[in-house]
Amino acid sequence: MSLTMYQASVPAFLQMLASLSAILDKAEAHAAARKIEPAVLLNTRLTPDMLPLVRQVQLASDFAKGTAARLAGIEPPKYPDTEASFAELKARIAKTVGLVKDIRAAQIDGSEGREITIPIGGQPHKFTGQDYLIKFALPNFYFHITTAYAILRHCGVEIGKRDFLGQFGAE
Amino acid sequence: MSLTMYQASVPAFLQMLASLSAILDKAEAHAAARKIEPAVLLNTRLTPDMLPLVRQVQLASDFAKGTAARLAGIEPPKYPDTEASFAELKARIAKTVGLVKDIRAAQIDGSEGREITIPIGGQPHKFTGQDYLIKFALPNFYFHITTAYAILRHCGVEIGKRDFLGQFGAE
Repeated sequence: MSLTMYQASVPAFLQMLASLSAILDKAEAHAAARKIEPAVLLNTRLTPDMLPLVRQVQLASDFAKGTAARLAGIEPPKYPDTEASFAELKARIAKTVGLVKDIRAAQIDGSEGREITIPIGGQPHKFTGQDYLIKFALPNFYFHITTAYAILRHCGVEIGKRDFLGQFGAE
Repeated sequence: MSLTMYQASVPAFLQMLASLSAILDKAEAHAAARKIEPAVLLNTRLTPDMLPLVRQVQLASDFAKGTAARLAGIEPPKYPDTEASFAELKARIAKTVGLVKDIRAAQIDGSEGREITIPIGGQPHKFTGQDYLIKFALPNFYFHITTAYAILRHCGVEIGKRDFLGQFGAE
Protein backbone atom coordinates (compact mmCIF):
# COMPACT_ATOMS: atom_id res chain seq x y z
CA MET A 1 0.00 0.00 0.00
CA SER A 2 1.00 3.59 -0.44
CA LEU A 3 -0.36 7.01 -1.21
CA THR A 4 -1.46 8.14 -4.64
CA MET A 5 -0.35 11.50 -6.02
CA TYR A 6 -4.00 12.56 -5.92
CA GLN A 7 -4.33 11.65 -2.24
CA ALA A 8 -1.16 13.61 -1.44
CA SER A 9 -2.33 16.76 -3.19
CA VAL A 10 -6.01 17.44 -3.87
CA PRO A 11 -7.43 16.78 -0.36
CA ALA A 12 -4.92 19.26 1.10
CA PHE A 13 -5.88 21.92 -1.43
CA LEU A 14 -9.60 21.45 -0.83
CA GLN A 15 -9.28 21.45 2.96
CA MET A 16 -7.15 24.57 3.10
CA LEU A 17 -9.07 26.52 0.43
CA ALA A 18 -12.27 25.86 2.39
CA SER A 19 -10.60 27.07 5.59
CA LEU A 20 -9.26 30.15 3.80
CA SER A 21 -12.73 31.00 2.50
CA ALA A 22 -14.21 30.66 6.01
CA ILE A 23 -11.41 32.83 7.41
CA LEU A 24 -12.23 35.51 4.82
CA ASP A 25 -15.86 35.37 5.98
CA LYS A 26 -14.70 36.14 9.51
CA ALA A 27 -12.43 38.91 8.25
CA GLU A 28 -15.29 40.48 6.31
CA ALA A 29 -17.55 40.35 9.38
CA HIS A 30 -14.75 41.82 11.52
CA ALA A 31 -14.35 44.73 9.08
CA ALA A 32 -18.10 45.37 9.00
CA ALA A 33 -18.46 45.25 12.80
CA ARG A 34 -15.59 47.68 13.34
CA LYS A 35 -16.38 49.91 10.35
CA ILE A 36 -13.03 49.12 8.76
CA GLU A 37 -12.92 49.65 5.00
CA PRO A 38 -12.46 46.11 3.55
CA ALA A 39 -9.72 47.45 1.26
CA VAL A 40 -7.61 48.18 4.33
CA LEU A 41 -7.54 44.50 5.28
CA LEU A 42 -7.11 43.38 1.67
CA ASN A 43 -4.06 45.59 1.30
CA THR A 44 -2.42 44.83 4.65
CA ARG A 45 1.08 43.37 4.52
CA LEU A 46 3.09 41.81 7.35
CA THR A 47 5.97 44.04 6.35
CA PRO A 48 6.28 46.56 3.50
CA ASP A 49 8.20 44.22 1.18
CA MET A 50 5.81 41.30 1.54
CA LEU A 51 2.68 40.89 -0.56
CA PRO A 52 -0.70 42.07 0.75
CA LEU A 53 -3.58 39.80 1.74
CA VAL A 54 -5.26 39.95 -1.67
CA ARG A 55 -2.09 38.62 -3.38
CA GLN A 56 -1.58 35.92 -0.75
CA VAL A 57 -5.07 34.61 -1.51
CA GLN A 58 -4.54 34.84 -5.28
CA LEU A 59 -1.26 32.95 -4.97
CA ALA A 60 -2.80 30.24 -2.77
CA SER A 61 -5.38 29.82 -5.56
CA ASP A 62 -2.62 29.75 -8.19
CA PHE A 63 -0.61 27.06 -6.41
CA ALA A 64 -3.70 24.89 -5.91
CA LYS A 65 -4.94 25.08 -9.49
CA GLY A 66 -1.45 25.17 -11.01
CA THR A 67 -0.31 22.10 -9.13
CA ALA A 68 -3.44 20.03 -9.70
CA ALA A 69 -3.46 20.95 -13.40
CA ARG A 70 0.26 20.33 -14.01
CA LEU A 71 0.16 16.98 -12.22
CA ALA A 72 -2.79 16.08 -14.43
CA GLY A 73 -0.79 17.11 -17.50
CA ILE A 74 -3.08 19.98 -18.45
CA GLU A 75 -2.32 23.66 -18.85
CA PRO A 76 -3.25 25.59 -15.69
CA PRO A 77 -5.93 28.19 -16.44
CA LYS A 78 -4.89 31.78 -15.79
CA TYR A 79 -7.18 33.85 -13.59
CA PRO A 80 -6.76 37.64 -13.84
CA ASP A 81 -5.57 39.06 -10.52
CA THR A 82 -8.28 41.68 -10.29
CA GLU A 83 -10.10 40.83 -7.05
CA ALA A 84 -10.85 43.92 -4.97
CA SER A 85 -13.32 42.69 -2.36
CA PHE A 86 -13.84 39.78 0.01
CA ALA A 87 -16.71 38.58 -2.19
CA GLU A 88 -14.46 38.52 -5.25
CA LEU A 89 -11.68 36.70 -3.39
CA LYS A 90 -14.16 34.10 -2.15
CA ALA A 91 -15.50 33.71 -5.70
CA ARG A 92 -11.95 33.06 -6.90
CA ILE A 93 -11.48 30.43 -4.21
CA ALA A 94 -14.78 28.82 -5.19
CA LYS A 95 -13.74 28.80 -8.86
CA THR A 96 -10.39 27.25 -7.88
CA VAL A 97 -12.14 24.58 -5.81
CA GLY A 98 -14.41 23.83 -8.77
CA LEU A 99 -11.45 23.43 -11.10
CA VAL A 100 -9.54 21.21 -8.67
CA LYS A 101 -12.64 19.07 -8.07
CA ASP A 102 -13.13 18.63 -11.82
CA ILE A 103 -9.74 16.96 -12.12
CA ARG A 104 -10.17 13.23 -11.63
CA ALA A 105 -7.86 11.12 -9.51
CA ALA A 106 -6.98 9.05 -12.58
CA GLN A 107 -5.56 12.15 -14.27
CA ILE A 108 -3.17 12.89 -11.39
CA ASP A 109 -2.32 9.37 -10.32
CA GLY A 110 0.91 8.08 -11.78
CA SER A 111 2.30 11.61 -12.14
CA GLU A 112 5.12 11.07 -9.59
CA GLY A 113 7.62 10.52 -12.41
CA ARG A 114 6.10 12.99 -14.88
CA GLU A 115 8.49 15.74 -15.96
CA ILE A 116 7.21 19.16 -14.94
CA THR A 117 9.08 22.28 -16.01
CA ILE A 118 8.14 25.64 -14.56
CA PRO A 119 9.83 29.02 -14.53
CA ILE A 120 11.31 30.01 -11.16
CA GLY A 121 12.95 33.39 -10.97
CA GLY A 122 12.76 33.63 -14.77
CA GLN A 123 14.61 30.33 -15.36
CA PRO A 124 12.98 27.03 -16.34
CA HIS A 125 13.28 24.41 -13.61
CA LYS A 126 12.66 20.75 -14.24
CA PHE A 127 11.08 18.56 -11.58
CA THR A 128 9.67 15.08 -11.33
CA GLY A 129 5.99 15.26 -10.38
CA GLN A 130 6.86 13.93 -6.93
CA ASP A 131 9.55 16.53 -6.20
CA TYR A 132 7.39 19.27 -7.67
CA LEU A 133 4.55 18.41 -5.30
CA ILE A 134 6.47 17.66 -2.11
CA LYS A 135 9.42 20.04 -2.36
CA PHE A 136 7.97 23.02 -4.20
CA ALA A 137 4.19 23.18 -4.61
CA LEU A 138 3.03 22.22 -1.11
CA PRO A 139 5.53 24.47 0.72
CA ASN A 140 4.50 27.38 -1.51
CA PHE A 141 0.80 26.67 -1.11
CA TYR A 142 1.04 26.50 2.68
CA PHE A 143 3.22 29.58 2.71
CA HIS A 144 0.49 31.72 1.16
CA ILE A 145 -2.34 30.18 3.19
CA THR A 146 -0.41 30.75 6.43
CA THR A 147 0.62 34.27 5.49
CA ALA A 148 -2.99 35.21 4.67
CA TYR A 149 -4.00 33.87 8.07
CA ALA A 150 -1.14 35.70 9.82
CA ILE A 151 -2.09 39.02 8.19
CA LEU A 152 -5.63 38.67 9.50
CA ARG A 153 -4.44 37.69 13.00
CA HIS A 154 -2.21 40.76 12.87
CA CYS A 155 -5.31 42.83 12.00
CA GLY A 156 -7.14 41.52 15.05
CA VAL A 157 -9.56 39.12 13.33
CA GLU A 158 -10.64 36.53 15.89
CA ILE A 159 -9.40 33.33 14.31
CA GLY A 160 -7.30 30.50 15.70
CA LYS A 161 -5.42 27.41 14.66
CA ARG A 162 -8.67 25.48 14.21
CA ASP A 163 -9.81 28.01 11.63
CA PHE A 164 -6.48 27.59 9.86
CA LEU A 165 -6.71 23.81 9.81
CA GLY A 166 -10.37 23.66 8.81
CA GLN A 167 -12.00 20.26 8.49
CA PHE A 168 -9.19 17.82 9.10
CA GLY A 169 -11.50 14.92 9.47
CA ALA A 170 -10.38 13.24 12.70
CA GLU A 171 -12.95 11.41 14.77
CA MET B 1 3.44 3.57 -9.14
CA SER B 2 2.67 5.91 -6.33
CA LEU B 3 4.20 7.73 -3.42
CA THR B 4 5.29 6.07 -0.21
CA MET B 5 4.37 7.57 3.14
CA TYR B 6 8.09 8.15 3.72
CA GLN B 7 8.44 10.06 0.44
CA ALA B 8 5.43 12.21 1.32
CA SER B 9 6.77 13.17 4.76
CA VAL B 10 10.47 12.93 5.61
CA PRO B 11 11.94 14.82 2.61
CA ALA B 12 9.63 17.76 3.37
CA PHE B 13 10.69 17.82 7.02
CA LEU B 14 14.40 17.66 6.16
CA GLN B 15 14.17 20.34 3.46
CA MET B 16 12.26 22.79 5.60
CA LEU B 17 14.23 22.20 8.81
CA ALA B 18 17.42 22.89 6.86
CA SER B 19 15.93 26.09 5.46
CA LEU B 20 14.75 27.11 8.94
CA SER B 21 18.23 26.59 10.37
CA ALA B 22 19.78 28.69 7.58
CA ILE B 23 17.17 31.41 8.19
CA LEU B 24 18.11 31.44 11.88
CA ASP B 25 21.75 31.92 10.86
CA LYS B 26 20.73 35.01 8.91
CA ALA B 27 18.61 36.24 11.81
CA GLU B 28 21.52 35.83 14.21
CA ALA B 29 23.85 37.73 11.87
CA HIS B 30 21.20 40.45 11.45
CA ALA B 31 20.92 40.84 15.23
CA ALA B 32 24.71 40.99 15.64
CA ALA B 33 25.15 43.55 12.84
CA ARG B 34 22.47 45.82 14.24
CA LYS B 35 23.33 45.28 17.90
CA ILE B 36 19.88 43.82 18.56
CA GLU B 37 19.70 41.58 21.63
CA PRO B 38 18.98 38.08 20.20
CA ALA B 39 16.28 37.61 22.84
CA VAL B 40 14.31 40.43 21.22
CA LEU B 41 14.01 38.49 17.97
CA LEU B 42 13.43 35.19 19.78
CA ASN B 43 10.51 36.69 21.68
CA THR B 44 8.92 38.60 18.80
CA ARG B 45 5.33 37.71 17.96
CA LEU B 46 3.30 38.72 14.90
CA THR B 47 0.53 39.78 17.25
CA PRO B 48 0.31 39.60 21.05
CA ASP B 49 -1.82 36.45 21.11
CA MET B 50 0.37 34.45 18.75
CA LEU B 51 3.43 32.50 19.90
CA PRO B 52 6.92 34.03 19.69
CA LEU B 53 9.67 32.92 17.33
CA VAL B 54 11.25 30.54 19.81
CA ARG B 55 7.97 28.60 20.19
CA GLN B 56 7.34 28.55 16.44
CA VAL B 57 10.71 26.85 15.96
CA GLN B 58 10.10 24.42 18.84
CA LEU B 59 6.72 23.51 17.37
CA ALA B 60 8.13 23.02 13.88
CA SER B 61 10.60 20.60 15.50
CA ASP B 62 7.78 18.90 17.41
CA PHE B 63 5.65 18.35 14.31
CA ALA B 64 8.60 16.96 12.34
CA LYS B 65 9.74 14.50 15.00
CA GLY B 66 6.23 13.73 16.24
CA THR B 67 4.94 12.94 12.78
CA ALA B 68 7.91 10.86 11.66
CA ALA B 69 7.89 8.92 14.93
CA ARG B 70 4.13 8.31 15.05
CA LEU B 71 4.05 7.17 11.42
CA ALA B 72 6.89 4.78 12.29
CA GLY B 73 4.86 3.50 15.24
CA ILE B 74 7.31 4.72 17.87
CA GLU B 75 6.79 7.11 20.76
CA PRO B 76 7.94 10.64 19.82
CA PRO B 77 10.75 11.79 22.11
CA LYS B 78 9.98 14.87 24.19
CA TYR B 79 12.45 17.73 24.01
CA PRO B 80 12.28 20.28 26.84
CA ASP B 81 11.27 23.70 25.50
CA THR B 82 14.16 25.54 27.10
CA GLU B 83 16.01 27.07 24.15
CA ALA B 84 17.02 30.68 24.80
CA SER B 85 19.48 31.47 22.00
CA PHE B 86 19.85 31.02 18.26
CA ALA B 87 22.57 28.44 18.90
CA GLU B 88 20.25 26.41 21.11
CA LEU B 89 17.41 26.59 18.57
CA LYS B 90 19.75 25.44 15.82
CA ALA B 91 20.95 22.60 18.04
CA ARG B 92 17.35 21.54 18.54
CA ILE B 93 16.76 21.57 14.80
CA ALA B 94 19.94 19.51 14.27
CA LYS B 95 18.78 17.01 16.91
CA THR B 96 15.37 16.81 15.22
CA VAL B 97 17.00 16.24 11.83
CA GLY B 98 19.13 13.49 13.35
CA LEU B 99 16.09 11.77 14.80
CA VAL B 100 14.11 12.03 11.57
CA LYS B 101 17.06 10.71 9.56
CA ASP B 102 17.43 7.74 11.92
CA ILE B 103 13.93 6.57 11.06
CA ARG B 104 14.13 4.22 8.11
CA ALA B 105 11.74 4.37 5.16
CA ALA B 106 10.63 0.81 5.93
CA GLN B 107 9.37 1.92 9.37
CA ILE B 108 7.13 4.62 7.88
CA ASP B 109 6.08 2.92 4.67
CA GLY B 110 2.73 1.21 4.90
CA SER B 111 1.57 3.56 7.66
CA GLU B 112 -1.21 5.13 5.54
CA GLY B 113 -3.81 2.94 7.24
CA ARG B 114 -2.20 2.87 10.70
CA GLU B 115 -4.44 4.24 13.45
CA ILE B 116 -2.91 7.29 15.08
CA THR B 117 -4.60 8.89 18.07
CA ILE B 118 -3.41 12.23 19.36
CA PRO B 119 -4.87 14.78 21.76
CA ILE B 120 -6.19 17.91 20.08
CA GLY B 121 -7.58 20.57 22.35
CA GLY B 122 -7.51 18.07 25.22
CA GLN B 123 -9.58 15.44 23.40
CA PRO B 124 -8.20 12.30 21.75
CA HIS B 125 -8.61 12.36 17.97
CA LYS B 126 -8.24 9.28 15.83
CA PHE B 127 -6.73 9.47 12.35
CA THR B 128 -5.54 7.08 9.73
CA GLY B 129 -1.83 7.62 9.06
CA GLN B 130 -2.70 9.14 5.70
CA ASP B 131 -5.17 11.67 7.08
CA TYR B 132 -2.88 12.45 9.99
CA LEU B 133 -0.04 13.32 7.60
CA ILE B 134 -1.92 15.14 4.85
CA LYS B 135 -4.72 16.86 6.78
CA PHE B 136 -3.12 17.60 10.13
CA ALA B 137 0.64 17.16 10.44
CA LEU B 138 1.84 18.84 7.23
CA PRO B 139 -0.46 21.90 7.56
CA ASN B 140 0.70 22.35 11.16
CA PHE B 141 4.37 21.86 10.29
CA TYR B 142 4.21 24.40 7.48
CA PHE B 143 2.23 26.78 9.66
CA HIS B 144 5.06 27.03 12.19
CA ILE B 145 7.84 27.17 9.59
CA THR B 146 6.03 29.96 7.73
CA THR B 147 5.21 31.89 10.89
CA ALA B 148 8.85 31.73 12.04
CA TYR B 149 9.86 33.10 8.63
CA ALA B 150 7.18 35.81 8.76
CA ILE B 151 8.29 36.97 12.22
CA LEU B 152 11.84 37.41 10.93
CA ARG B 153 10.69 39.24 7.79
CA HIS B 154 8.66 41.47 10.06
CA CYS B 155 11.87 42.14 12.07
CA GLY B 156 13.70 43.21 8.92
CA VAL B 157 15.89 40.15 8.40
CA GLU B 158 16.86 40.03 4.73
CA ILE B 159 15.38 36.73 3.64
CA GLY B 160 13.14 35.82 0.74
CA LYS B 161 11.02 33.00 -0.60
CA ARG B 162 14.13 31.12 -1.75
CA ASP B 163 15.37 31.05 1.85
CA PHE B 164 11.98 29.72 2.91
CA LEU B 165 11.95 26.97 0.29
CA GLY B 166 15.57 25.94 0.79
CA GLN B 167 16.96 23.17 -1.40
CA PHE B 168 13.99 22.05 -3.45
CA GLY B 169 16.13 20.08 -5.84
CA ALA B 170 14.95 21.21 -9.27
CA GLU B 171 17.47 21.21 -12.11
